[in-house]
Amino acid sequence: MTVGADGKTAADVDPLMLGRAIVDADRRAAHALNLVPSENRISPLAALPLGSDFYNRYFFNTAGDPLFWEFRGGEDIAHIEALGAQALRRMASAQYCNVRPISGMSAMILTVAALSAPGRTVVSIDQNSGGHYATPALLGRMGRHSRLLGCKDGQVDESELADVLAPGDVDLVYVDVQNCVRVPDFGLMADVVNQVSPATRLYVDASHYLGLVLGGLVENPLACGADAFGGSTHKSFPGPHKGVIFTNAEDVDESLRSAQFDMVSSHHFAETLALSLSALEVEPRIGDYAWATTDNARRLACALADAGFRVYGDSRSGYTDTHQVWVELDGTADAYALSNRLAEAGIRVNLQSSMPGMSGVHLRLGSNEVTFEGAGPQAIEQLAGALATARERALEPRTVSEIRGRFGAPFYTDPEKLKLEAGL
Amino acid sequence: MTVGADGKTAADVDPLMLGRAIVDADRRAAHALNLVPSENRISPLAALPLGSDFYNRYFFNTAGDPLFWEFRGGEDIAHIEALGAQALRRMASAQYCNVRPISGMSAMILTVAALSAPGRTVVSIDQNSGGHYATPALLGRMGRHSRLLGCKDGQVDESELADVLAPGDVDLVYVDVQNCVRVPDFGLMADVVNQVSPATRLYVDASHYLGLVLGGLVENPLACGADAFGGSTHKSFPGPHKGVIFTNAEDVDESLRSAQFDMVSSHHFAETLALSLSALEVEPRIGDYAWATTDNARRLACALADAGFRVYGDSRSGYTDTHQVWVELDGTADAYALSNRLAEAGIRVNLQSSMPGMSGVHLRLGSNEVTFEGAGPQAIEQLAGALATARERALEPRTVSEIRGRFGAPFYTDPEKLKLEAGL
Repeated sequence: MTVGADGKTAADVDPLMLGRAIVDADRRAAHALNLVPSENRISPLAALPLGSDFYNRYFFNTAGDPLFWEFRGGEDIAHIEALGAQALRRMASAQYCNVRPISGMSAMILTVAALSAPGRTVVSIDQNSGGHYATPALLGRMGRHSRLLGCKDGQVDESELADVLAPGDVDLVYVDVQNCVRVPDFGLMADVVNQVSPATRLYVDASHYLGLVLGGLVENPLACGADAFGGSTHKSFPGPHKGVIFTNAEDVDESLRSAQFDMVSSHHFAETLALSLSALEVEPRIGDYAWATTDNARRLACALADAGFRVYGDSRSGYTDTHQVWVELDGTADAYALSNRLAEAGIRVNLQSSMPGMSGVHLRLGSNEVTFEGAGPQAIEQLAGALATARERALEPRTVSEIRGRFGAPFYTDPEKLKLEAGL
Repeated sequence: MTVGADGKTAADVDPLMLGRAIVDADRRAAHALNLVPSENRISPLAALPLGSDFYNRYFFNTAGDPLFWEFRGGEDIAHIEALGAQALRRMASAQYCNVRPISGMSAMILTVAALSAPGRTVVSIDQNSGGHYATPALLGRMGRHSRLLGCKDGQVDESELADVLAPGDVDLVYVDVQNCVRVPDFGLMADVVNQVSPATRLYVDASHYLGLVLGGLVENPLACGADAFGGSTHKSFPGPHKGVIFTNAEDVDESLRSAQFDMVSSHHFAETLALSLSALEVEPRIGDYAWATTDNARRLACALADAGFRVYGDSRSGYTDTHQVWVELDGTADAYALSNRLAEAGIRVNLQSSMPGMSGVHLRLGSNEVTFEGAGPQAIEQLAGALATARERALEPRTVSEIRGRFGAPFYTDPEKLKLEAGL
């Protein structure tokens, strides 16, 4: 029985048939190439806990304290959360890592709660400069005043930053640049904050480029003088849908723990285990993965420009420093025709209408997931070719198979090895 | 190789071996009997999406709008979120159901953001009366004033409620009673609110007893005059770790949608699919499941009392109206000896030290999960016997198998049927 998009017939609400439809759609998804900068494909190893009984459980006894087994069931694996946090701390060169947030927005809410007080002001980046769409409204709903800062191609104007700090009411500068091909100069921002308003905290929401920071391709905010950084763990970092926050300051860590107690109850045990496995699995290769992600993004940008696409950015510096590549299109109809032809063949692109400095509907592409799966220069070249072809006509059904045929080894343990070496 | 609890040796940080340890622990967990009122075991059908590629994806196009495929991949299953929400609305007799919260606390944050303003007051239930531990601090972190209300065994004092509303500064009464064997009288509360402060919203956080409300065993807060109710979906309701909010008021729904846009980005696609499957699967049996859950809780309470346990509550009315059963113990050492012996045999109990009206470490038991798995009167009788035995000595290894041998059919589709009828 076919399950249609209208959901109208009685047979369609048989949950078994809906389960069947999900499994069938998942089979197609397994083959697809995703070029979405905010998504990644969790590794087969790291996905194991998601389908386990630990998904159903509360877990708080990270230290394995024999008199803190209020909730049971995690006794034999209690140490895995801490081992994962250690791996994350090593990659981030950070003394403290909070793995309690259950999403990127959960990490944002926690950080605002921990590092600013109601009635005070939090500075964030204007959405027209790549800031997160939700930050100002979220701040208002949490009783903070919001003040916005511009940021053009990663350049924050020092005097503008000094001006927004001048009233002396700013608890926190929350650098929420998500959409960027150039990362802000955190060091410059830290210098201005320290000079103008030393009690103000500087936090970098690195959700999009977290994998690149941990891999050393984007400057580490802590090394630049930020008080803390963090974000979601499923974009350029190839982990589950969770959040992390890093700091070197004991008092910041303590503030985060205190806020976490009030704002997060279960931190989602299975996903915390998945984060640990992701972190430990990618750690030995994180530098190579980050390098390849940025290299692939630049190659994709150049190849698309060569094929006549209007790629955002400066060609002389490879268009992008991150995993993101932005492409202008000729209007909504063209954008959807392109996206639909690609999707038909199993290539999924992200359409956006709010990238800073761009108008209309455009492509926001990400090299992160295909890189994690093993794409190198040849595959990227073919992928760019497929995008160029799809401007004109439908793609051959074998397109994705051919591109995948060019993939090298993935940055995760392949299922064969999982089976042979660990019986998984 | 054994993975120990100390996490010290180098071999322990091999992620493959940690994955192996998780899979081994999961095998033991599959057999265990969980008596934890805040947990449930998601059904095999509803768990399918959790291990799928949809776990990795964003999804916003519930209506399947052909010009809103910014994020792709869910085209063939876009209708399943709406079908699940319809099932939830039918069970809750509610016109609107918001399935965006990603946890119970996320639903709490969203509700506070939507139905109260910074600087205003939110009334919640004193933790000593069963209120959620985090509410007052969370309110403070969101810039709201917190005012507490007592509630003894479900009884709110009318004049006390009138008093806390009298200053005229209360936007929201947030009924966050989690730990209760008697549910508050929502109708009485709604009457007082309407008389004293008609502009104040009344919200019931039904996280713990959600399954009992949807099954008709606990009075529906909306029918009693509450403006909205909701909570987490994995306690007495046997779904994934998500949150829902129900209302019949269009303006409340609109306020929730507006807050959701600011406070939640991805609502966790795989888990939203899991919630839909849970809801559609349990809907035809929700009344029977809720009835059996409460019946089992009362049988467990009576059997434990007969065996000499000090069970909280009134024996004449079966000790409890919910899925919860509270048992006083003789101190921490005894509590842990009991809990450890039970855990050794695969029976998991929840130790708490903050139930209202109780002192020291005690048991907070829940009948919800074993009921969902098929426990009836005979199994409950044997389970109570096992608890009584474990006060004195270790349990026989076969105890859990024997108890499971008394189980009837579960309230979900068994794996054989999934395979035969849908090839899953």
